Amino acid sequence: MKAVVNVFLKEGVLDPQGKATSHALASLGFKGINEVRIGKQIVIDLDATSKEEAEKEVKEMSETLLANTVIEDYNIEIVE
Amino acid sequence: MKAVVNVFLKEGVLDPQGKATSHALASLGFKGINEVRIGKQIVIDLDATSKEEAEKEVKEMSETLLANTVIEDYNIEIVE
Repeated sequence: MKAVVNVFLKEGVLDPQGKATSHALASLGFKGINEVRIGKQIVIDLDATSKEEAEKEVKEMSETLLANTVIEDYNIEIVE
Repeated sequence: MKAVVNVFLKEGVLDPQGKATSHALASLGFKGINEVRIGKQIVIDLDATSKEEAEKEVKEMSETLLANTVIEDYNIEIVE
């Protein structure tokens, strides 16, 4: 089964990587960019007997390792 | 308008960050993990008059800056 975890900085948390990318795009001539924010997309291939089990397992992984829940939010999608 | 660009390593390209995460999860006691791969999720808030225009613009950004197309693939989703 495949799980996709998107980890992104919470609203209001400064994102220097996004800011740098935004500036770089502007200096390349791209116009009308209001904001760029950069997060992680983690794709996990795991053995699980059901979608529910996979989701529970991946939620635990996210809380303990994948996301820093002080400054980051995450969402989980089980794709197959 | 918001565009989400997912940038991920091509099949077969070694992903040391994913490997490290996979080992870390295993050492935390998570079982049945076959593979972990880590990509970037870039969310761009931009002014565009249409979905088509936004998609064209973001495709160009991806090709020139956001993705290294030698080793990375990407997909674009216009969300609103």
